Amino acid sequence: MKSTGPIPAGFETLNGELAIGGKPVSELVEQAGRTPLFVYSGDMIAQRIADLRAAMPDRLLINYAVKANPFGPVLQHMAGLVDGFDIASAGELEIVKQAGIDPHRVSFAGPGKRTGELEAAIAAGGTLNCESEGELDRSLAAGETLGMAPRIAFRVNPSFEIKGSGMKMGGGAKPFGIDAEAVPALAKRAIAAGIEFRGLHIFAGSQALSSDALIETQANTLELADQISESIGQSLPKLNMGGGFGIPYFPKERPLDIISIGDALKARFAALPNSLKDADICLELGRYLVGEAGVYLTRIIDRKVSHGHTYLVTDGGLHHQLAASGNFGTVVRRNYPSAIATRYGDEPTEAASIVGCLCTPLDRLADNVSVPRAEVGDIVAVFCAGAYGATASPANFLGQGPAEEIFL
Amino acid sequence: MKSTGPIPAGFETLNGELAIGGKPVSELVEQAGRTPLFVYSGDMIAQRIADLRAAMPDRLLINYAVKANPFGPVLQHMAGLVDGFDIASAGELEIVKQAGIDPHRVSFAGPGKRTGELEAAIAAGGTLNCESEGELDRSLAAGETLGMAPRIAFRVNPSFEIKGSGMKMGGGAKPFGIDAEAVPALAKRAIAAGIEFRGLHIFAGSQALSSDALIETQANTLELADQISESIGQSLPKLNMGGGFGIPYFPKERPLDIISIGDALKARFAALPNSLKDADICLELGRYLVGEAGVYLTRIIDRKVSHGHTYLVTDGGLHHQLAASGNFGTVVRRNYPSAIATRYGDEPTEAASIVGCLCTPLDRLADNVSVPRAEVGDIVAVFCAGAYGATASPANFLGQGPAEEIFL
Repeated sequence: MKSTGPIPAGFETLNGELAIGGKPVSELVEQAGRTPLFVYSGDMIAQRIADLRAAMPDRLLINYAVKANPFGPVLQHMAGLVDGFDIASAGELEIVKQAGIDPHRVSFAGPGKRTGELEAAIAAGGTLNCESEGELDRSLAAGETLGMAPRIAFRVNPSFEIKGSGMKMGGGAKPFGIDAEAVPALAKRAIAAGIEFRGLHIFAGSQALSSDALIETQANTLELADQISESIGQSLPKLNMGGGFGIPYFPKERPLDIISIGDALKARFAALPNSLKDADICLELGRYLVGEAGVYLTRIIDRKVSHGHTYLVTDGGLHHQLAASGNFGTVVRRNYPSAIATRYGDEPTEAASIVGCLCTPLDRLADNVSVPRAEVGDIVAVFCAGAYGATASPANFLGQGPAEEIFL
Repeated sequence: MKSTGPIPAGFETLNGELAIGGKPVSELVEQAGRTPLFVYSGDMIAQRIADLRAAMPDRLLINYAVKANPFGPVLQHMAGLVDGFDIASAGELEIVKQAGIDPHRVSFAGPGKRTGELEAAIAAGGTLNCESEGELDRSLAAGETLGMAPRIAFRVNPSFEIKGSGMKMGGGAKPFGIDAEAVPALAKRAIAAGIEFRGLHIFAGSQALSSDALIETQANTLELADQISESIGQSLPKLNMGGGFGIPYFPKERPLDIISIGDALKARFAALPNSLKDADICLELGRYLVGEAGVYLTRIIDRKVSHGHTYLVTDGGLHHQLAASGNFGTVVRRNYPSAIATRYGDEPTEAASIVGCLCTPLDRLADNVSVPRAEVGDIVAVFCAGAYGATASPANFLGQGPAEEIFL
């Protein structure tokens, strides 16, 4: 028998079922019309942001990284909760505009921006997080074509990374940003060429669960921003400190201690150097804001026993939940938190594997876990499905198509 | 510097460029209108199937596993080249019908068939590869609803697997098929209930490059089919022997020796037991038929140096080529075959990493490889892109959207 990751706080039991936003899952499925289904809770997102703001210094701004979950109603909800939006493509710019968000609130990062994407962002009034000298030249040319001064921040490839983070974005050679030592000269040239200087973007990693590592990274980030600002000879209008706040997915992982992070940041903010005194300083968070507020619901369509092991076969799978399945084969696959949502109040009575409907052994949602006995028709919940779920999975694999999504 | 996998045979150089089907890549990109672009060669698919038929016994039928590449023109081309089609969902049934393929040529396998999918397949005259007792009951009920005898083969979970295969589909407890020892009783009950019995489906693994392992598996498969047939007390109208034929993706991997496999199978076929004498015996192949006939083309939009390492940033990436990128993080990532397609005749002069446009360090197409010096505007080719590319990747990740696809 294997463990599952911890179920996030905030879910209830109603009539023996898992309830999200006060509604039992069977009612949510009825409302959506079908499974598989992603359910996102607006209240849980709002609560997460409120808790974060309470822990952080007052002046800290919070940006939402659209890539984590670009579902329209989530973005509309975010519009009233966060201070800015970070996008990664012209496609995301369109999605953000469709959600009614003012593109002036948007920053665009990404190592491979096409010229058409640069033009679209400049024309809309967004800020470009410039990733290279070549991209700066193309941005200047695009600005000239449009007769507009491009709004540009410089994305820095820092020499440090977040220790123990799930995904390292700095430290050594990287395709992201401009090596820290090359930023000042490039920024001075760009400012002389007439850009609207929007400061710096320093992103050192993601999915970190150690507050100590994040505190150290934030200190390094503020110090590096000050150094670069001094070298440019201009204070910073804005600093995007990156994000990196992780959520627990797997057994033994624990939620991040945001109180410690907030306290350390308050101390830093009380003694900011002149270069940062008037800066808009923001965190850019995606997964941390929405990850735990989403649940993936899929219905059991077969129950079978093979060589003594029970399989619960669902109508969902890796085409919607690639990360939960193990990303097409990890060496040590671990279980996301999951449950039989229609028997949420029941004690576990058997061991079973919950698998998807795809014809591949990699399509596993929960491997050899302890569950109440479930039958065909029962609904399975996979938690931590609010970020990097629907859009980070190959929805059309094996002709399946996307899941339904609803926002509460 | 790291190696890349072997470039498949059959590609040429024309005017210094990689040519596919006699056309240089710059012409193909112009024809398609944009990058990123998948190009599939009908001639290479036809040649692969001709070589395979020449090596295999005359009576062996060849089925195409649609999941490998469901692009419409590929399916239409296949219609005149293979003997049947294997699908994995009602979505694939629709795709096959849209390509003008008679559903009577289709078999439907998959552990999680919804009742609506069973009904659609029965109504269309397709064969269901039955995966469990529960599914049989639902199929019988669906047949009754429709007033049609369902055409059913039984998918067997064999006790053996293909040694060293990339993906094991048999051996021990599995969500696929019915444990071999349980098949005869279930088949007898189904035949008594009035199904049209369509034989057996025995699939033991995929992506094997050892001919010895495949020869052994095929021998085991024929033996198991005979045993089950004897227990049922009826000879088999059809036997799907599965597939498992792999293609080389990575350094040091070699093409499969199909001559040895064909010779071994000819010897087996010369001494078939009575139960199989009149059976339609087929192989089900996907990746092996189309994988090497596809190339992914993506344009370099930035060239940058970070801490001395050169990055060629392209407009493509893991959202189209997830497997080539390393499936969101493998422990030991290896390089698919790739090349600077617009400098295909040139000698390598530098080391560089070719990355995608996504804002994640996992978006790598070729890590630290030896290439001719490439500039912005050059086109990169990633080979072995004909199978499990476009539909097995998260096309909408970071708002990117699908690649273009053309068939030659």
